[in-house]
Amino acid sequence: MNAPTRIEMLVIGDELLDGRVVNSNATRVGRALAELGFGIAEVTTIPDDLTVIVRAAQEISARGTQLCLVSGGLGPTADDLTSAAFATLADRPLVRDETAASHIVAWLSARGRSVTPNQLKQADRPQGARLLVNPVGSAPGFDLTVLGCRFLSAPGIPAELDAMFTASIYTELAELGARTARRTLLTFGLIEAEVDQRLAAMPLRWPQVRVAFQVKFPEIHVVLTASVAHVADLDAAMAFAREALGVHLFATTPCRFAESVLATLQARGATLAIAESCTGGLISHLLTEVPGSSQTLLAGVVSYANAAKLEILGVPESVLAQHGAVFEATVLAMAEGVRRISHADYAVAASGVAGPSGGTPEKPVGTVYIAAIGATFAAARKLALPFDRSGNKLLSAYAALDLLRQHLLAVEPSPKSAEYP
Amino acid sequence: MNAPTRIEMLVIGDELLDGRVVNSNATRVGRALAELGFGIAEVTTIPDDLTVIVRAAQEISARGTQLCLVSGGLGPTADDLTSAAFATLADRPLVRDETAASHIVAWLSARGRSVTPNQLKQADRPQGARLLVNPVGSAPGFDLTVLGCRFLSAPGIPAELDAMFTASIYTELAELGARTARRTLLTFGLIEAEVDQRLAAMPLRWPQVRVAFQVKFPEIHVVLTASVAHVADLDAAMAFAREALGVHLFATTPCRFAESVLATLQARGATLAIAESCTGGLISHLLTEVPGSSQTLLAGVVSYANAAKLEILGVPESVLAQHGAVFEATVLAMAEGVRRISHADYAVAASGVAGPSGGTPEKPVGTVYIAAIGATFAAARKLALPFDRSGNKLLSAYAALDLLRQHLLAVEPSPKSAEYP
Repeated sequence: MNAPTRIEMLVIGDELLDGRVVNSNATRVGRALAELGFGIAEVTTIPDDLTVIVRAAQEISARGTQLCLVSGGLGPTADDLTSAAFATLADRPLVRDETAASHIVAWLSARGRSVTPNQLKQADRPQGARLLVNPVGSAPGFDLTVLGCRFLSAPGIPAELDAMFTASIYTELAELGARTARRTLLTFGLIEAEVDQRLAAMPLRWPQVRVAFQVKFPEIHVVLTASVAHVADLDAAMAFAREALGVHLFATTPCRFAESVLATLQARGATLAIAESCTGGLISHLLTEVPGSSQTLLAGVVSYANAAKLEILGVPESVLAQHGAVFEATVLAMAEGVRRISHADYAVAASGVAGPSGGTPEKPVGTVYIAAIGATFAAARKLALPFDRSGNKLLSAYAALDLLRQHLLAVEPSPKSAEYP
Repeated sequence: MNAPTRIEMLVIGDELLDGRVVNSNATRVGRALAELGFGIAEVTTIPDDLTVIVRAAQEISARGTQLCLVSGGLGPTADDLTSAAFATLADRPLVRDETAASHIVAWLSARGRSVTPNQLKQADRPQGARLLVNPVGSAPGFDLTVLGCRFLSAPGIPAELDAMFTASIYTELAELGARTARRTLLTFGLIEAEVDQRLAAMPLRWPQVRVAFQVKFPEIHVVLTASVAHVADLDAAMAFAREALGVHLFATTPCRFAESVLATLQARGATLAIAESCTGGLISHLLTEVPGSSQTLLAGVVSYANAAKLEILGVPESVLAQHGAVFEATVLAMAEGVRRISHADYAVAASGVAGPSGGTPEKPVGTVYIAAIGATFAAARKLALPFDRSGNKLLSAYAALDLLRQHLLAVEPSPKSAEYP
């Protein structure tokens, strides 16, 4: 096969159109092809309907597509119509493949299942189509070129589809070589328009480098791609973007934000404790999602009631009486308290009004104070957040961790650069 | 509008084709339409490319589609091309909508952000298109009939798309008449096959009622639907399912599991505290996602290091020395400790090995102890979980809360029934 210039995907199944199942096959095939340096031009999702399958395949071919990966409709039930549809499309009979029938019988027998006629239907495929063996299930697939397009068809069950495409088309494409290279920049602390503005010069300076943005609230990811012939441009653009994004860039490989914060602490051999009010445990939760976080995180206190701030964290009664739970002095005292009782090197804290109720004219919903402290520094910030309760919690958690991360990078620099890894 | 006979969806975004983002908008729109008694005939997913958007919209119209919901490509950056593409398709100029521009300026100003020219680009739409207001973000959408098909375009950000389609097309479709009725049962504590088994008699007794399962790990949701003509069958089946699912049924309207736990406590005027080790703050986070949880939740302690278990929670050194951090006596002492220091009526605790490392032959990865205590009872359970770190944390958090919920319902019954609300 020559390298295909246009690849599409055809996804077949009623359950993908009425919200019962997420189209994860398209996501995984897209990722697999991107890793091999290829791209999917279009994904079409249609129901288990013979006429619709035939029409969609005709349209795919008419768009000049050379390779189409097909998912679904190969099972034993009456609504599995993919083989019949492609036989119709190719104007060939549907024939039973004896190798595939034997595989189905052996597969079911080995599992103590009886062989019903509808199970054997899975061995039917358009005459002349090449068999795609299913190493992890009973339903085989097929490889058929018709109307100038090569269609590879696999069952919709994710593990079966992955195994069959890996053993067939992914291997073939890998041998054709990667055509595009890609770089990723993960940022926090800027909104999408601000990231865009900082990178505005790039399309003019490096026109061969494509810039795409992805909002993964509250992170903004930037993906740079270029053909392998322009990888030098890509690297130059990457260096520019690093500089332009500065401390807001926290990673250049896929990783969690909390992972980069923990790595910044681990590079300094430091430990951490958390005091939370409005974030309600989320800061600790984000950190403890990272394997190995127990080396760094010693303790967290969710001091939701004022009594907990007083008695567990030792926030002075005078501070609470004078300023209330949502104030700079209070959040600093919370951080100091948890640092003291946990004996951690650093502590972060957050207290605020997450909403939807609880706001006052002075401290409306979205007013949050965050703090970060160590033996030799203490910093606090006020945030005014516009999101719903969950969004305000999440942004506050990120901002509190980022306050510490930025202080560590600026005040106590290590040989490691701002972003991780 | 008359009831559309053919509805399609057009999803725009490079990130959906290269595996960076799952096409969850198509899933949610499909589910929303199914609930309204309508179906999506086809979903087309394409890149941020003006020519491709125009061509795809032409094909959608040529298939006889009367209504097409469009997602994505309405943001501020250079790769957001949906408005420009539909202007090209309709052969009309792209005009700046002053109402939308004012909304963008007001939205950004209220959040202390400056208004950059690319932000105002979001106010551009094809001349004659109706504005779709965005109640939760800056980018508006549009409603444009061209080539005999009505296209409704919303940003790809899920919360914004949901809010805009709910306020526009879903409301319109709902008025065209709900053709089906639906009941939902939310369960925790059974696997899908067990739920299926308990409800196995239903299809025979009430053949007009469709039973569908939805796994929202670690919850299993059961959705019963029937035509409005068979609503009596639906209610009979619902009563049967309530009985069959028993205490594992926690709600019959959409709600969070933590919400049902909090409601069970609130019905008794009781307060709660949390001590967490392996769940790392997740139990507190789940509870504090619920508005008003501060009435019930007093405090949480994430005693990740053993020193925190000893010093903050007062777990006896002898218990830790004899049994380690992962044991029944330890998790009970953690619950007692946090109940004492927070003065709460009830406390739950979890300690275990979330993985991926940290297991031993005696306590392999997935070994978790959970506890729930009150003034007059104490209960603990051992779990052996098979999931990854995130899954083990989540199931442990649910199981710890459920231990308390079931005790409250069984030991201290109130007039309220098992499920909430």
